[in-house]
Amino acid sequence: MTAPQFSTIALDIDDGIATLWLDRPEKMNAFTPQMKYELIAAFDHTDANDDVRAVIVTGRGRAFCAGADLSSGGDTFDYDKRAGEDHRRDGGGQTTLRIFRSLKPVIGAINGAAVGIGATMQLPMDIRIASETAKFGFVFARRGITPEAASSWFLTRTVGLSTALEWCYSGRVFPASEARERGLVRSLHAPDDLYPAAVALAHELTDESAPVSVAMTRQMLWRMHAAGHPMDAHRIDSQAIISRGKSADAHEGVSSFLEKRAAEFPNKVSTDMPDFFDWQAEPPFD
Amino acid sequence: MTAPQFSTIALDIDDGIATLWLDRPEKMNAFTPQMKYELIAAFDHTDANDDVRAVIVTGRGRAFCAGADLSSGGDTFDYDKRAGEDHRRDGGGQTTLRIFRSLKPVIGAINGAAVGIGATMQLPMDIRIASETAKFGFVFARRGITPEAASSWFLTRTVGLSTALEWCYSGRVFPASEARERGLVRSLHAPDDLYPAAVALAHELTDESAPVSVAMTRQMLWRMHAAGHPMDAHRIDSQAIISRGKSADAHEGVSSFLEKRAAEFPNKVSTDMPDFFDWQAEPPFD
Amino acid sequence: MTAPQFSTIALDIDDGIATLWLDRPEKMNAFTPQMKYELIAAFDHTDANDDVRAVIVTGRGRAFCAGADLSSGGDTFDYDKRAGEDHRRDGGGQTTLRIFRSLKPVIGAINGAAVGIGATMQLPMDIRIASETAKFGFVFARRGITPEAASSWFLTRTVGLSTALEWCYSGRVFPASEARERGLVRSLHAPDDLYPAAVALAHELTDESAPVSVAMTRQMLWRMHAAGHPMDAHRIDSQAIISRGKSADAHEGVSSFLEKRAAEFPNKVSTDMPDFFDWQAEPPFD
Repeated sequence: MTAPQFSTIALDIDDGIATLWLDRPEKMNAFTPQMKYELIAAFDHTDANDDVRAVIVTGRGRAFCAGADLSSGGDTFDYDKRAGEDHRRDGGGQTTLRIFRSLKPVIGAINGAAVGIGATMQLPMDIRIASETAKFGFVFARRGITPEAASSWFLTRTVGLSTALEWCYSGRVFPASEARERGLVRSLHAPDDLYPAAVALAHELTDESAPVSVAMTRQMLWRMHAAGHPMDAHRIDSQAIISRGKSADAHEGVSSFLEKRAAEFPNKVSTDMPDFFDWQAEPPFD
Repeated sequence: MTAPQFSTIALDIDDGIATLWLDRPEKMNAFTPQMKYELIAAFDHTDANDDVRAVIVTGRGRAFCAGADLSSGGDTFDYDKRAGEDHRRDGGGQTTLRIFRSLKPVIGAINGAAVGIGATMQLPMDIRIASETAKFGFVFARRGITPEAASSWFLTRTVGLSTALEWCYSGRVFPASEARERGLVRSLHAPDDLYPAAVALAHELTDESAPVSVAMTRQMLWRMHAAGHPMDAHRIDSQAIISRGKSADAHEGVSSFLEKRAAEFPNKVSTDMPDFFDWQAEPPFD
Repeated sequence: MTAPQFSTIALDIDDGIATLWLDRPEKMNAFTPQMKYELIAAFDHTDANDDVRAVIVTGRGRAFCAGADLSSGGDTFDYDKRAGEDHRRDGGGQTTLRIFRSLKPVIGAINGAAVGIGATMQLPMDIRIASETAKFGFVFARRGITPEAASSWFLTRTVGLSTALEWCYSGRVFPASEARERGLVRSLHAPDDLYPAAVALAHELTDESAPVSVAMTRQMLWRMHAAGHPMDAHRIDSQAIISRGKSADAHEGVSSFLEKRAAEFPNKVSTDMPDFFDWQAEPPFD
């Protein structure tokens, strides 16, 4: 598959790893409605393309994403005055819900300032690593608005209620070291080491694993995380184990292990996801 | 608004910060039905009073709250024998559910012994800080009763299941250092530094933030924390962003940021909370 | 009560503590359908036997549990080809759901390799401690299958989404030190110190606590952990406090405390659990 071309982001695919570059460096990668559409389209592509085993999201230039583009000044968050925008749905949430549905692991490589939607868009990514020079801010209350992008669901699940409330009440910008201490990011890296570390992690997560297993794992863990009872998980993983247990992937996985050789998994995400579950369903907005 | 007068607690309001003192120092601030009514009334006041930006709860004297008043001896927890008490609802839970509904940030400043309801009443507070001399005990199983005050919901969300179970099974009293290590409290302070630290934190959380944004943030994060899917948050924050985005607060928030000056937010919690959501609703008890 | 005899596990009861030994040391305690039935029966026994105050699960020999018995090779996970197996339900999940319903505290003492079901069966245990020589692996994706045993519900609640996804995507085997750092295990011990530490912890959790209180606490915390609102907990703990508050245990608990003597709680789990709640109910599979 040919990777699509975009204007506010760039998509590279190399050796199984897709990199989504937020690509408005002259604007500190400020978020726009166009960037929303392009990010959603990019994840549609990475899900459909079997050459992609994992996705890295990072920023071009010195910022990750400095937040919403404020070129409209005080009217920035007035949806009635924004052209080409869904007047009923928060654009950040449309983006994070799409990332939530990804069938490939998603790593955020936070290379610089990540403020507002630049902070909340990271939350549906599986793992975040950051440059030592990155900074973060859930600045909404200082702008007279509120946390968006479904971050009221995501953030407390990552760092707990106390830290989430502290960051969102105060709206203060905080350094990468605090993001690391509170559990928002997994590790810190020198600026030049960040992207190579993200690539290495992407390979570590996927190189020896069956693609269909990884895709199912992503949706099972994210969606069962908030389920009311472990029986909900038992219903799904019973079918998952039973359907995958008889698959060519399982035969290869166990055989290669017993034969002490690398596995070559034949099944593909594009064609072999079992149909007992709708892996990308989401509740309706209305 | 004039702050109401109470007999078991005291309410001070100074420079935007309300302090609720548990105020039975001769009884180590032991909890009584009267204290329950007064705490609920105090939070009704702090929610309604626009002069209050944040609430600190602390204890007068050497204890925070030594638990239920045991002056009735072995009949202490026998509701049939307690005067003036709702015979169907746990009084601790009525208190913590009221704190849960607060529209202002709530900081617990745990100045000394916090045992039984003295420990569980802290859990719906947003952030806890403690004196190095504080101690904590979820002692219910040692008294032949069970965790109350809805702590079976709150505690695991703060410290995880393993620690919550360990503390509630054993009923042992543990030092502030363990509370800090396990994540129950954010920071420890010398006894004389505790209250000033709480005041400083209250200002840090609110001084530069819009009051309506803070109130909405509190309810969005606490209530979405347990929601089943991020779509639940997207539905609410879409309306939140759209309604606040056209508000005078948002105009001031963005304009002041672009003009590099302090914001002066015009909207008030008492009159300007958007009506698309019932910010203080709770499910019925029955 | 006489402890039942098993073939793949062994059950010892001594001084109030039941120890379940995974007991196929020549097979590194590999999991079989027979082991599933025996573990379920063992927890039926520990719940019914009032002499048991807590349960320790550990492995005989050098492994805790090396995962599913792979003696069927590539057909190992093909349920259609497995004799005596429920063809619709994952056996690991039947086991973990039974542990979830335990009325006694459960401690995992992870003495060695814990891979696949050997890792996921630990998750419904309340607290895990491990030998410094233990290792862990959620290896499913490397075998072409998926996480099972309802671990998509349990694991993220123990270590958070990022770590859970990292471990389950990569399928890599990791050392006890990483399990400790990420919060999967509470403490590490020299191999010979592990079992004594588990016994000491079991006593610490239960020696001074009322058995009925401990049993109710276990189910209240595990089941309310995923409830949608603290009102759910308030409904249950109101009845719990009211019913236990008038019990002989509560009278003894408060009286012994005021008299500064050890409590002797008269109530038993087998006969005195209050009936306002079904303490061992679970949703139906279908």
